[in-house]
Amino acid sequence: MSTTHPAGFRASGVTAGLKASGASDVALLVNDGPDHHAAAVFTGNRVEAAPVTWSRQVVADGRADAVVLNSGGANACTGAQGFTDTHRTAEHVAGVLEVSAGDVVVCSTGLIGELLPMDKLLPGVDAAAAALTGDGGPDAARAIMTTDSVPKTAVAQRDGWSVGGMAKGAGMLAPALATMLVVVTTDAVTTPEQLDAALREATRTTFDRIDSDGCMSTNDAVVALSSGASGVTPAPDELTEALREVCGELARALIGDAEGAAHDIAVTVRRAATEEDGLEVARAVTRSNLLKCAIFGQDPNWGRVLSAVGTTAATFDPRDLDVSINDVMVCRESGVGEDRDLVSLAEREVRIDIDLKSGEEEVTVWTNDLTHDYVHENSAYST
Amino acid sequence: MSTTHPAGFRASGVTAGLKASGASDVALLVNDGPDHHAAAVFTGNRVEAAPVTWSRQVVADGRADAVVLNSGGANACTGAQGFTDTHRTAEHVAGVLEVSAGDVVVCSTGLIGELLPMDKLLPGVDAAAAALTGDGGPDAARAIMTTDSVPKTAVAQRDGWSVGGMAKGAGMLAPALATMLVVVTTDAVTTPEQLDAALREATRTTFDRIDSDGCMSTNDAVVALSSGASGVTPAPDELTEALREVCGELARALIGDAEGAAHDIAVTVRRAATEEDGLEVARAVTRSNLLKCAIFGQDPNWGRVLSAVGTTAATFDPRDLDVSINDVMVCRESGVGEDRDLVSLAEREVRIDIDLKSGEEEVTVWTNDLTHDYVHENSAYST
Repeated sequence: MSTTHPAGFRASGVTAGLKASGASDVALLVNDGPDHHAAAVFTGNRVEAAPVTWSRQVVADGRADAVVLNSGGANACTGAQGFTDTHRTAEHVAGVLEVSAGDVVVCSTGLIGELLPMDKLLPGVDAAAAALTGDGGPDAARAIMTTDSVPKTAVAQRDGWSVGGMAKGAGMLAPALATMLVVVTTDAVTTPEQLDAALREATRTTFDRIDSDGCMSTNDAVVALSSGASGVTPAPDELTEALREVCGELARALIGDAEGAAHDIAVTVRRAATEEDGLEVARAVTRSNLLKCAIFGQDPNWGRVLSAVGTTAATFDPRDLDVSINDVMVCRESGVGEDRDLVSLAEREVRIDIDLKSGEEEVTVWTNDLTHDYVHENSAYST
Repeated sequence: MSTTHPAGFRASGVTAGLKASGASDVALLVNDGPDHHAAAVFTGNRVEAAPVTWSRQVVADGRADAVVLNSGGANACTGAQGFTDTHRTAEHVAGVLEVSAGDVVVCSTGLIGELLPMDKLLPGVDAAAAALTGDGGPDAARAIMTTDSVPKTAVAQRDGWSVGGMAKGAGMLAPALATMLVVVTTDAVTTPEQLDAALREATRTTFDRIDSDGCMSTNDAVVALSSGASGVTPAPDELTEALREVCGELARALIGDAEGAAHDIAVTVRRAATEEDGLEVARAVTRSNLLKCAIFGQDPNWGRVLSAVGTTAATFDPRDLDVSINDVMVCRESGVGEDRDLVSLAEREVRIDIDLKSGEEEVTVWTNDLTHDYVHENSAYST
């Protein structure tokens, strides 16, 4: 049931005609309260899409009543007209739902550099409002898909309350977010400040630790809404943990459905001196095109792991690094270890473990391999 | 004639059997003086190959008598035995040439993580020494090739003196060098200090501004040797300029022969506030896999340029960026500009110009597109 699993939310997904395919492309999510708290994190990209600029302002006061999302167009790099279109969309939603436009979050995803067809989008909003139901979460999840092959939803059920979520994204996935739209909902009783803190902590170790292709998007948004409809007030830690569970599951689903990928690769850095060191090393390895090609070719080419590790400033002895691939220690003390032919890379999931022997921190970042299909999908996307 | 074009140098290239193909794989270059000045820059990768560790020490005193280079094995991640093998190679060259082992630069390139077959390499050194001639530069250039499709040489002829060079490298090309071995020679009269300064300045704006795939190698070395045999003492600026000419030509040849590439892409950042800003923006754009796939697909997807620019901290107004692709301004003031269908990407060379409108600096970084052939070659390299 995704975002409508927690009490107090209605959702829908309809076809407005933004996608040539005729698949659904407008989603609406409404928080019926009693609380209307909201928090969000957005792309770190300075070239941000109009809906990001708008929605930052909307959630700044900790309140939102609705989220409207469209696929079929990112409304990025669209200048003043793009912002006007986002504003109009929010006003239209506000009119239909009888709320304030300043409490309507807007999210868009699709091709950059094209204006949205407002003559299709606004009637789509009307249709989405008419279709709102208490079990419309899955419809909304389908309507935000672009190159996703499956809708992504998750639920964390707790005692008397829950967290639900939906996500889209299948490329341009990188830390500080990506072409990723996520909405998480909860019926827990909380404050806007606690919701914001819980969301930031949950995304820090989930969405910020997936990196499909190193490219940062202009449109990413992760929005959290709380209705308080359960009447249950969890401890802040419990709320954070439930959010992290849902965000973690959605992040894993994004990597598992990344454009053209044949492998999901968990790069774990062990015994790092600091968490920052571990992250720096993991990110360097997850961004190595050469390594990603090797994994696609089922080649446990650990030299490419070491050459990526060596580009970082993390604390380690370059002569004393161990690397295991799927539990086979192919590199020991920066030299040849166990027979690389013992490594099987036939399964989709791959584990690369790097032991820095310099501390106690451990960090995992997920990525994908680099494949013919990735090149194909991304060389032909806009044509 | 490449490295043997300047007076005072002999070179050779022979087959030692390191390559399964039977192609030549050991090159030797000797500086007969009267000067024996040397300078070098090496990979910034902390996981550096044994020959890099060795050769750093060799050139530290500004003198080298010979450079021995092998393809067919990088001697990287090979531990203490790898360093012993490099040392033995230098000792062997020294014995044959009757020079000091401490004046013999050693360079290796090929697969990481495998020991060199010394029983083949050392007889190869003997054969290379026997084959040394004053016009052996092209033979040496061929012997250092790995996945290169052509040998790369260049010459800058000046009045009474010259600079010559050879290079290999076709993947793992990135700033701070790559799987790139380069030797440049000159018969100009200079000092070790001037040679070092000229080499660093020349590489800074040539080899350090090509980035084929963002991956930094363990073995990169650019070695400069001066013989003084011309008897001509150019001004320091003239020497730098001639070195820059040869390094620039070789760098362009490396990009033009990058593994699997179908396009060579010059990303030029104009009107940057500082050179650092220009470089940061150019590097961010040249590392965008999504953009590189789009260029492969002949798709002038300028949104991917802007989304890469937006990841940087450079000075610019995100609402006022212009982007031209092959002279068509497809993005004006961060929005839609001229018709993208006017852009032809049929030619191999592509120019992407980004106007930051924030200063007077201009920086160009070269890269390649991301293609099926890149994925193919790099998914199957070691198998």
